[in-house]
Amino acid sequence: MPRPVPVLPEGVDPAWLPVRAFRPIGTRRTLIRGSGPLVETVHGEVAEACARFGGRVERDAAPGPFDLVLELTGSGDDSSEAFGYERGRGCTTVTATGARGLLYGFFHVVRLGEAAFVGEAQQALHEPALALRMLDHWDNVAVHPVMGQVERGYAGGSLFWAAGRARGELERVRAYGRLLAACGINAVAVNNVNVHEVEARLLTDRIGEVADIAGALRPYGIRTHLSVTFAAPIVLGGLETADPLDGRVREWWAGAVARVHEAIPDFGGFVVKADSEGQPGPFAYGRTHADGANMLAAALEPYGGTVHWRAFVYDHRQDWRDRTTDRARAAYDHFVPLDGEFAANAVLQVKHGPMDFQVREPVSPLISAMSHTTLAVELQATQEYTGQQRHVCWLGPMWSEVLRFLGDQEGPAFEELVAVSNVGDDPFWTGHPLAQANLYTFGRLAWQPDADPGGILDEWIRLSFGTGPAAGLHAVLDGSWRTYEKYTAPLGVGFMVQPGHHYGPSVDGYEYSPWGTYHFADRDGVGVDRSVASGTGYAGQYAKAWAEVYESAESCPDELLLFFHHVPYGHVLKSGRTVIQHIYDTHFEGVAEAEAAARVWESLAGLVTPARHARVAELFEEQLRSAREWRDQINSYFLRKSGVPDAEGRVIY
Amino acid sequence: MPRPVPVLPEGVDPAWLPVRAFRPIGTRRTLIRGSGPLVETVHGEVAEACARFGGRVERDAAPGPFDLVLELTGSGDDSSEAFGYERGRGCTTVTATGARGLLYGFFHVVRLGEAAFVGEAQQALHEPALALRMLDHWDNVAVHPVMGQVERGYAGGSLFWAAGRARGELERVRAYGRLLAACGINAVAVNNVNVHEVEARLLTDRIGEVADIAGALRPYGIRTHLSVTFAAPIVLGGLETADPLDGRVREWWAGAVARVHEAIPDFGGFVVKADSEGQPGPFAYGRTHADGANMLAAALEPYGGTVHWRAFVYDHRQDWRDRTTDRARAAYDHFVPLDGEFAANAVLQVKHGPMDFQVREPVSPLISAMSHTTLAVELQATQEYTGQQRHVCWLGPMWSEVLRFLGDQEGPAFEELVAVSNVGDDPFWTGHPLAQANLYTFGRLAWQPDADPGGILDEWIRLSFGTGPAAGLHAVLDGSWRTYEKYTAPLGVGFMVQPGHHYGPSVDGYEYSPWGTYHFADRDGVGVDRSVASGTGYAGQYAKAWAEVYESAESCPDELLLFFHHVPYGHVLKSGRTVIQHIYDTHFEGVAEAEAAARVWESLAGLVTPARHARVAELFEEQLRSAREWRDQINSYFLRKSGVPDAEGRVIY
Repeated sequence: MPRPVPVLPEGVDPAWLPVRAFRPIGTRRTLIRGSGPLVETVHGEVAEACARFGGRVERDAAPGPFDLVLELTGSGDDSSEAFGYERGRGCTTVTATGARGLLYGFFHVVRLGEAAFVGEAQQALHEPALALRMLDHWDNVAVHPVMGQVERGYAGGSLFWAAGRARGELERVRAYGRLLAACGINAVAVNNVNVHEVEARLLTDRIGEVADIAGALRPYGIRTHLSVTFAAPIVLGGLETADPLDGRVREWWAGAVARVHEAIPDFGGFVVKADSEGQPGPFAYGRTHADGANMLAAALEPYGGTVHWRAFVYDHRQDWRDRTTDRARAAYDHFVPLDGEFAANAVLQVKHGPMDFQVREPVSPLISAMSHTTLAVELQATQEYTGQQRHVCWLGPMWSEVLRFLGDQEGPAFEELVAVSNVGDDPFWTGHPLAQANLYTFGRLAWQPDADPGGILDEWIRLSFGTGPAAGLHAVLDGSWRTYEKYTAPLGVGFMVQPGHHYGPSVDGYEYSPWGTYHFADRDGVGVDRSVASGTGYAGQYAKAWAEVYESAESCPDELLLFFHHVPYGHVLKSGRTVIQHIYDTHFEGVAEAEAAARVWESLAGLVTPARHARVAELFEEQLRSAREWRDQINSYFLRKSGVPDAEGRVIY
Repeated sequence: MPRPVPVLPEGVDPAWLPVRAFRPIGTRRTLIRGSGPLVETVHGEVAEACARFGGRVERDAAPGPFDLVLELTGSGDDSSEAFGYERGRGCTTVTATGARGLLYGFFHVVRLGEAAFVGEAQQALHEPALALRMLDHWDNVAVHPVMGQVERGYAGGSLFWAAGRARGELERVRAYGRLLAACGINAVAVNNVNVHEVEARLLTDRIGEVADIAGALRPYGIRTHLSVTFAAPIVLGGLETADPLDGRVREWWAGAVARVHEAIPDFGGFVVKADSEGQPGPFAYGRTHADGANMLAAALEPYGGTVHWRAFVYDHRQDWRDRTTDRARAAYDHFVPLDGEFAANAVLQVKHGPMDFQVREPVSPLISAMSHTTLAVELQATQEYTGQQRHVCWLGPMWSEVLRFLGDQEGPAFEELVAVSNVGDDPFWTGHPLAQANLYTFGRLAWQPDADPGGILDEWIRLSFGTGPAAGLHAVLDGSWRTYEKYTAPLGVGFMVQPGHHYGPSVDGYEYSPWGTYHFADRDGVGVDRSVASGTGYAGQYAKAWAEVYESAESCPDELLLFFHHVPYGHVLKSGRTVIQHIYDTHFEGVAEAEAAARVWESLAGLVTPARHARVAELFEEQLRSAREWRDQINSYFLRKSGVPDAEGRVIY
């Protein structure tokens, strides 16, 4: 039985799967071969398209001719996600040995649109570069008194939970899974890595609620993962210890996983934030993080599950007066000594930068230093530090830079890509309609990390908006990350944000805090000396070539200069500008660019739906207000401190 | 029937009314003459003391001899609070024409202790300088999501309310009223001036809960007041307007007051925060604050009630870039044009300084500029900006400076003194046991504004602790306000606090905010130019003599220099030190003084109760940590900005 396509609730934006995107398939004759649940999903998709546009869909041995053949060549048990694609003699053929491959092949055809049905195409094998492409939802079950329903969420409530309960709106979850499958995402963690009291119980007596979500996502090839607390044996199991080497603890976890597996046969595994920002972990028992992760890995192993163990471990109670501690060093210092000790299904999940999702950071040196450990790189789609989905900030170029940097390394790469979700129950899914581009781009980059992000954006625009507003949307989005970078914290220094909520500027907001996030600006200069020669030594954590580049202020790239070096305001950048003049210039430029983008958006009225246009136009007002606030605070701060006037005499307060 | 003395709940600190304080009366023979409820209160007090210590109390025509005669000479209807006091021929005599006068005379004897029963004393009339001596409780009925049960409360929950309901612990409220009467306070407003949804209903269907509190406070001569929302006719009355000149609105208020008066015959009146920090007010209807206040005054007038109308009106959405607006000017600019327009029972309640209860501010020029308006001066006993009852900070000297400044003015003075309460359900009433001194001192200064605060403190110490630890307590408390001033924001500049909760340093925390609280520090200097010649003109709001003093940096007192002037770091103070060296010196001194105070406190173990000693010792740990944090942040900030090294080469980070 073909599985019906999920129906979007009234008023919810179709994102990159509008009805229009299915016209090329829906007007044609399609044959589907094979059996199994995901084949029925594909059949339901094609049938829905044909019902709408007058095409036809047949199964198995039906007589042709066909414009499109989608064929599962094996039994479907094959876990491969690859598919073959070719076109000849007027017929487009997708073949796959695994059911998920067929699903991805189908969406490949959707993405190609009419281009899938013209000309010839040689047989080509498409397969994802990374086996796991996961979204981590920082969704709380209960509303957290400070963090709310979704921690760092800027898109309304959670798709899964509301005020302590499962929402039970599974049709919307199915529609969500469909969007994710269409861009290649195959795993979702359904709750916040900060596991509070209510959320802890998802692992045990509330696993049924997780199973319902898993059931809704499964038809689109998505496995469900769960964030758990390391202290679960104590808080849920009534033990007096969570020591990973304690037999009763190991037994408790084994039993817990067995029960989870009964409820969710294809359960993906756990995500764990341990010994991090106050969460419990193995340190309390004198055990290593490998001990902790491996204990959970052992419990999951019989069922093919994985533990994602986050490497975000640092001292968040640092004394700002202590110049010997450097938070940027922490993940490397903690985990490199453990390389080789992690089980095969214990995945170390490492944030892409050494700090915390700033608009500009160097790539974490840990990622290239763990030859004998399975790694997941974690990106942040939710725009915590990049405008909180009130600012346009397409992160594709940033992510692509990170992935290419890693692709160019000699050392081992990584096997998985994870992003913190930017999705909520907002009608546009992501709050800011244009933030959908980040979600889509993440999925496509996770499938092919060396893909051209501009091409991905183009694909997203075509699917979501059609070709009419494409030039305008590129103008608004292409440079938006660099625009955001320009009007916020300069030259890689980071963290000049309001403490707590992290929106808007506060240059000294984290300067005298325990969080390890300092810029050390004084009347003479600014930046953090992380060189080996005179600083914290962080630069020395990189392989030789990059260590040398970062070690000296002369060779360090401009955009990371203040991350690695404390320099005088008069220091001349490679661009030829002084640091102080660069600060002024980029802040004026950034606002001007945002203003220009808002004008472009204005001109797109009539080319995009009124709902999208109105929402984005409204958000641009806030973006411009905020960008000007950033410009003026940053410029005023540095003028007051440096005393150096702007060479162009512009207004600085 | 003598009214029994309220029984303190187990573990609650007796504050300045320990049993011991009643021994001088309790061991003697007392005659009480007169009748009425407050006479019964006094009789109950004396009877309780005699029961404990073996003395004797008689009524009216009983035969002598007596050591003490307490006589109500009139019917008790006299509203006078005055009492006569004399001693001769072995007998101490207190006479009063009003019942409250007798009560205050009784507590006068308590405060005198044994000294009331030795020697001779000429007949003297004691009467309060100010008719109304009020505590405003910023207590919420429901727990506010940000502000909690008590807004800016640092002493646990509320005595009156808990989680949306009346606590109903009226015995504790009675004990509270007794403490207040013993230091001369005669009015209490029982809820927060920010009137939220639940709290609004105290005026109507929940007035019974207020009446219960009023009933508990009445036997100690305390009238109860209520904070109301100006929008009450809309939110409670179902009208579509709260326009003070609208007949239906006036009618609604008249009816509401009539019903309040039925429940509370001696109801004191309303406290209103209107058009202030988001609260509704007459501006919405194009009416003046006099229109608003007079409408409420008219409703209260038939019952002898008063409206306290707060003058805390300013633009809390200021643009920090706008140097033409000065929050310090706001109250004067708003209210001076209305002088003479307020009804006789409409009291304008003015904060003592022009900003908001900083550790050092000049006295508000508004207070001396309203010849034709009844004024209440508002102090803040709750230590919002003065250490939040985790730091020892006895505010007596600050308040005394303010009151003496006002006493020295030629213009009209003020008729009432109000303090924001520092009391909660904490066993020590005020969280920090030594913060009780602020509550006591407020009451005594409200009775006699020109009293020597050191004498009041001495009185408080003798009552609360006896004479043993007196020298030590003076050492800890006498200079504590100046110590706190030294290690926090320098030279009157104010507001270098963490935004929101206002605890701990953040030099730039309010520098780029909409709150109108700036210091304008740059690499060359710091401070706000409020002169007439080159600044905001605020200095010109004072009468000529003070306007001239404040106008120039040369004549401005050191401690207010940065409030009135922006000066270079090298500016030489009257003390002979430069501004920058003053900043360094005072911050090192302040911490050293706090450390010395902590050592003195340590030495008092054995001289104060173990419970008090332990609580204060624990709080000193936090005070020292916080004081060092203040020292280091402020010094680092100004060293980084000025580049001027400390002349003594001490450690600055």
